[in-house]
Amino acid sequence: MELIFLGTSSAVPSKYRNHSAIALKAFGEIILFDCGEGTQRQMVQLKLSPMKVNNIFITHLHGDHILGIPGIIQSMGFRGRKEKLNIYGPPGIAMVIDSIMNLGYFTLNFNIEVHEIDGGILIDEKEYAIECAKTEHSIPNFSYSIIEKKKPRFLRKKALELGIEPGPDFGKLHAGTSVEVNGKIIKPEDVLGEPRKGIKIVYSGDTRPCDALIDLAMDADILIHESTFQADSPDKAEETCHSTAQEAANVALQARAKKLILTHISTRYKKSKILEKSAKEIFKNSMVAEDLMVVKVK
Amino acid sequence: MELIFLGTSSAVPSKYRNHSAIALKAFGEIILFDCGEGTQRQMVQLKLSPMKVNNIFITHLHGDHILGIPGIIQSMGFRGRKEKLNIYGPPGIAMVIDSIMNLGYFTLNFNIEVHEIDGGILIDEKEYAIECAKTEHSIPNFSYSIIEKKKPRFLRKKALELGIEPGPDFGKLHAGTSVEVNGKIIKPEDVLGEPRKGIKIVYSGDTRPCDALIDLAMDADILIHESTFQADSPDKAEETCHSTAQEAANVALQARAKKLILTHISTRYKKSKILEKSAKEIFKNSMVAEDLMVVKVK
Repeated sequence: MELIFLGTSSAVPSKYRNHSAIALKAFGEIILFDCGEGTQRQMVQLKLSPMKVNNIFITHLHGDHILGIPGIIQSMGFRGRKEKLNIYGPPGIAMVIDSIMNLGYFTLNFNIEVHEIDGGILIDEKEYAIECAKTEHSIPNFSYSIIEKKKPRFLRKKALELGIEPGPDFGKLHAGTSVEVNGKIIKPEDVLGEPRKGIKIVYSGDTRPCDALIDLAMDADILIHESTFQADSPDKAEETCHSTAQEAANVALQARAKKLILTHISTRYKKSKILEKSAKEIFKNSMVAEDLMVVKVK
Repeated sequence: MELIFLGTSSAVPSKYRNHSAIALKAFGEIILFDCGEGTQRQMVQLKLSPMKVNNIFITHLHGDHILGIPGIIQSMGFRGRKEKLNIYGPPGIAMVIDSIMNLGYFTLNFNIEVHEIDGGILIDEKEYAIECAKTEHSIPNFSYSIIEKKKPRFLRKKALELGIEPGPDFGKLHAGTSVEVNGKIIKPEDVLGEPRKGIKIVYSGDTRPCDALIDLAMDADILIHESTFQADSPDKAEETCHSTAQEAANVALQARAKKLILTHISTRYKKSKILEKSAKEIFKNSMVAEDLMVVKVK
C-alpha cells in the first residue's frame, strides 16, 4: 500500500507545492482524495495512470481541491476509458460535475456516477471500506477514513491436521468458504487465526480541529491532517476555518493515531521544518508532506 | 518585450511539458494566449502575477488550451482583484466561462467580459493591436497576431532648429500632438522620422498549415506554430488536424517570417531536437519551445 502526496499546498500553488491531491495505491487501484488543478500532471511525474482511478473522493468544493477533475476526466476520455468512474463529494458536487461537461469539446465513452455524501460508510468492499464524517470548514467538508480489511492468518498446520490437501481448498477456506473433506464439513473459522486489524488511514480535508474528526480518526495508523498555519497564527486559522500544526497534533494525540502527516501548507511557509517542529512538541511522530512524497504503508 | 512559454505539450502533459499557454509580457501587462491546466502554477514558477493579466486569448475549446482558466480566475478572486478581465475565444467560450462559474465556492469582485470572436481586429490600442484569423482544426480555431505600434523616431536636432524648447513640447509632439512655438504651429510630422515597423508575433493555436495562417503571419518577426508531430507522421497530423514540424516550417517560409518557434509537442517525442532538425531543413531560423523558456523580443 502506498500513500502518495500529489499536491500539498493550500489555496494557491507555490514553486514546490501543487494544489491538494492524495493518491492511495492499494487494492489493485489508485484511489484519489481531492483533485486540485494539475493533479494529472503530478500523476505523470510518478507514472501513475488515471486509467487506474475508479473512485475519487472530494472533501469540499473549494477550487484548490476540485479543479483537477475536468482535466483528469478529459484525459481518461482521450485514452479511451470504458470503465465507470465514481466521484464522491459534498452536496453540490453533482452540479460541479454537470458543469464540467460543458468545458469545451471532448468525448467520453464511460459513465460517471456522482455520489453526494452525507456521512457514514460509502464503500464496503471485500478488501477495504471507506467511511466519511462531516467536519468543520467554512463550507461543508467531509473527512475520509480508509480501513483495510485484513484477512486472518491461515493456519496451515491446523488445516493439514484436519486432512485438507494443500491446493484450492486452502484458498477457499482463506477466502471464507467451507469445504468438505472425507464427508466432513470444514469451516473457515476452523483453520483461520484471530481477526487482524487492517491499516486505517484518515484524511481531514480542510477543517478546524473537531470531535467528529477525532472520532473518525480513532486509532488510525496514519492521520493526514491539514495544517494551513503554524502555531503562531491561531487567530488566522480560526478565522479561515483551518488548523495550525499544533491543533492538528492535538487531534492526532486525542485520536491515539500512530502517525501524523501534515499537509495543505500555506505558501507563507517556505521551510516546512517549522511546522514539523511545532507539531512534534505535542505529537512526536509527526511529519510534513512534500509534493510527490511516497509513504509505504504496512 | 518577453515571450514566455508556460506550457508546450499537446493534449496530455508530460514530465517536462505542461498544457498549452503562452504569456506575452509587454505594454505594461501580461497577455495570455491559451490557458491549459496548471498555467497559474507555471506563472508562479516565473513569478508572473495573474493580477497583471487583463486579456486572455483562447485559440480553441479543447481542454488542454482552456482548463487553466477556472483556477486563474479563482486565484484572481482570492487575491482581491477588482479590474475587469477580458477573455476572447471562439463561439462557445461564453458557455465555458458561464460553466466555470459553477465550479465550487468562490467569490469574484471583478467583471469578466467574454468576447466570442469571428476574425479581424480585436484590440486596437495605442501601443499594439491584436488580430485573429480562423484557421483549420477539428473544431473552430483562431490564430492570433500581435502587432506592436512603434512610434517614429523623434528628430531632436530638427526640433531644436525649429525653436522648440526641450521639455513637455517634445513629449507632446512625439505623442502626436501639435504645439505652438513663437506663434507658429509645429506639427508632429515636422519633427518625427519615418514610420517604424513594430514587432509582429503570430501564434497558430492548433491547426493544419493553411493560407489563412500564412496571410496572418506575413512578415512576422516570430511565428509560433504548433508542431504536434514530426515529419515522419504526416498522415497522423492530417488525421488529427495538426501539423508536422516540416509543415510549420513551410508556413514560416511562405509567410516570410523571421523566426519560427515550434510548440504543442506530442509526448511521443522525448527529445525535441528531432523536430528542430526537421524544421530547419526547410526554414533555418527554427527552434523548439521548452516549458518556462523566455524569449526576449526586440
